[in-house]
Amino acid sequence: MLSTMESYKTKVPRNSNMAKLQAGYLFPEIARRRSAHLLKYPDAQVISLGIGDTTEPIPEVITSAMAMILVYSLQRSHSLSTLEGYSGYGAEQGDKKLRDAIASTLYGDLGIDEADIFVSDGAKCDISRLQLLFGSNATIAVQDPSYPAYVDSSVIMGQTGLSINHFKDRCHLFLFPQQSNWFYGIKGTADQLVQFARDNGSIIVFDSAYAMYISDDSPRSIFEIPGAKEVAMEVSSFSKYAGFTGVRLGWTAIPKELLYSDGFPIAKDFNRIVSTCFNGASNVVQAGGLACLSAEGLEAMRSVVGYYRENTKIIVDTFTSLGFKVYGGKNAPYVWVHFPGRSSWDVFAEILEKTHIVTTPGSGFGPAGDGFIRVSAFGHRENVIEASRRFKQLFK
Amino acid sequence: MLSTMESYKTKVPRNSNMAKLQAGYLFPEIARRRSAHLLKYPDAQVISLGIGDTTEPIPEVITSAMAMILVYSLQRSHSLSTLEGYSGYGAEQGDKKLRDAIASTLYGDLGIDEADIFVSDGAKCDISRLQLLFGSNATIAVQDPSYPAYVDSSVIMGQTGLSINHFKDRCHLFLFPQQSNWFYGIKGTADQLVQFARDNGSIIVFDSAYAMYISDDSPRSIFEIPGAKEVAMEVSSFSKYAGFTGVRLGWTAIPKELLYSDGFPIAKDFNRIVSTCFNGASNVVQAGGLACLSAEGLEAMRSVVGYYRENTKIIVDTFTSLGFKVYGGKNAPYVWVHFPGRSSWDVFAEILEKTHIVTTPGSGFGPAGDGFIRVSAFGHRENVIEASRRFKQLFK
Repeated sequence: MLSTMESYKTKVPRNSNMAKLQAGYLFPEIARRRSAHLLKYPDAQVISLGIGDTTEPIPEVITSAMAMILVYSLQRSHSLSTLEGYSGYGAEQGDKKLRDAIASTLYGDLGIDEADIFVSDGAKCDISRLQLLFGSNATIAVQDPSYPAYVDSSVIMGQTGLSINHFKDRCHLFLFPQQSNWFYGIKGTADQLVQFARDNGSIIVFDSAYAMYISDDSPRSIFEIPGAKEVAMEVSSFSKYAGFTGVRLGWTAIPKELLYSDGFPIAKDFNRIVSTCFNGASNVVQAGGLACLSAEGLEAMRSVVGYYRENTKIIVDTFTSLGFKVYGGKNAPYVWVHFPGRSSWDVFAEILEKTHIVTTPGSGFGPAGDGFIRVSAFGHRENVIEASRRFKQLFK
Repeated sequence: MLSTMESYKTKVPRNSNMAKLQAGYLFPEIARRRSAHLLKYPDAQVISLGIGDTTEPIPEVITSAMAMILVYSLQRSHSLSTLEGYSGYGAEQGDKKLRDAIASTLYGDLGIDEADIFVSDGAKCDISRLQLLFGSNATIAVQDPSYPAYVDSSVIMGQTGLSINHFKDRCHLFLFPQQSNWFYGIKGTADQLVQFARDNGSIIVFDSAYAMYISDDSPRSIFEIPGAKEVAMEVSSFSKYAGFTGVRLGWTAIPKELLYSDGFPIAKDFNRIVSTCFNGASNVVQAGGLACLSAEGLEAMRSVVGYYRENTKIIVDTFTSLGFKVYGGKNAPYVWVHFPGRSSWDVFAEILEKTHIVTTPGSGFGPAGDGFIRVSAFGHRENVIEASRRFKQLFK
């Protein structure tokens, strides 16, 4: 009679917003399909050019700094995180020296100072915490395609309207008409975006996680645009420069000039949110972040970025030579390849089946991404070259 | 005419729940008062027995493991986090080996396996993420006094009713009548609590962050109570055993048997939430967590706990000898001292002013804590002894 036994259920209802999320969060879903593929082909030499996960080692100058703080903490009981001694809990906003270094090294004379910087355990984590500033009645507009965490954290937070369709309508405000404008696509339009926000009283959440990959005159920071400080905050990360994807370190810059409609400073609420819902990034990791911003650290990061840039060029050249129309790959280490009239997931599945290469279906980033696959340039050189060979064999 | 210039304001309204929070989050507020005190008395030898922040160094076996992973990452580009190689992004749920070790070492035969464990960057961070499971319409009951993050994250999430008073009414369901039952006060009543939850279809969020401090037969885990797996989840942390307050590592255990009212498994939604709003704890830190759970690591942690236990005894003896009624200090490194008829903040201020010792006002943990100060046993031995001397001088 086991089959008729009912499981015990609590009387606690599910957050109704959870059910409104699309199937799985994109990247775990890709990981699931990768595992299924490996079950089918246990000996396949799978190459992952899907998720934007760095592959090259963390530069030595940075790991040394992290190891150093660990060694210090053994020698005396007063040395883990600050000169004054082992601090245990850090300031929730982040170590002051790291905030100083971020402000001075990365924002220079843009008028962002250490008090505007909130150190995080990565951009993705702060994206959700930012939602708490505005609550469930906010209207969020995201560009299409966009990083899925923006949409999904909005949905979880209840910014869904009455139905998925309605939510879709509300979310796809900035559907850039020219697809070639996708990536840092606001080159030339960043001024317009800031002007739009100022005209409408909107707040821009600018994601600068790939700023070091920019090779033309696109803004590295939204705060390069005059007037942005009153209408923008910036989310950023060490992940893609220093191989910190698994180490977890980022920051959010919220200028003191950014105010709610009632005049209350948004940074004050964010400080309260990180104090309540977060307890600072790991002190060991923050030591690594400080090393990232030293002269040697910056040079090491530029070298890491240069390596992935060369990968990007190999991928762009591969698909261009095969006659595909390719977008991106200039100011970010991702290459979008167009398969007109085909579904992204179909192309994803065909590539995985026939070449054992994991890519990302463009539709995972929004409806406008359908018909595309995104190929990540994060990979060891030999794997990128091998992937190029397989792509050429498949699409020749 | 500067005084009449208006600042630019966006048209974005503040999350209305933020305004319903009590003044400051407790611990930053204490830090503010500590700083103000130091401005007034620049030469004061301030002793902090306020926030529960560990002071002793991280055991060497644990820092070595973290340093090792950093050294490995230099030697070859395939070694940072797993045997298979540098992983960059980890599984959002945490490294499988660490989840295995937590389940087997800390839950033994309680029927919790690695799939039920979600590794976090600390209990405080998961407390907020847990709120997302239930959304803004949930009714949350907290014991009084309680860790402020439980109440504050509920308020931010909108579980506030229509007013602060209403919210207060809703939140103080479990006001344990016997004050001596405060700390792990469910000894003898844990069965009743689980029975209450089963009778009402409620979900218990059990915070076991101090389980290793328990010296009597109180449950270390809620899952020791038969029937708990269908009605409870457990939040926990390495902070107080391994000196990880600043290193940031914890976990949440959600049994697969725990179901929403519609039968959907809560762990599935939590997995989606950590995938969307979090990206896993730092791989360096997770390596330290694994070392914590080795035989030497466990012994080192027991030794750290023993050190703070001795501090606790010194503090309890001090106040008892002064004729104060003292609660706690047995199963947790905190001593609650009763000042009948006085306001906690007044006592806090008097102690700070006259002895330069930072404590925590009991009222910061809830209305039932008023009339108490909480003295933390996290301190270097010499500071605890010096604090004891000053307390004796003040209250003799």
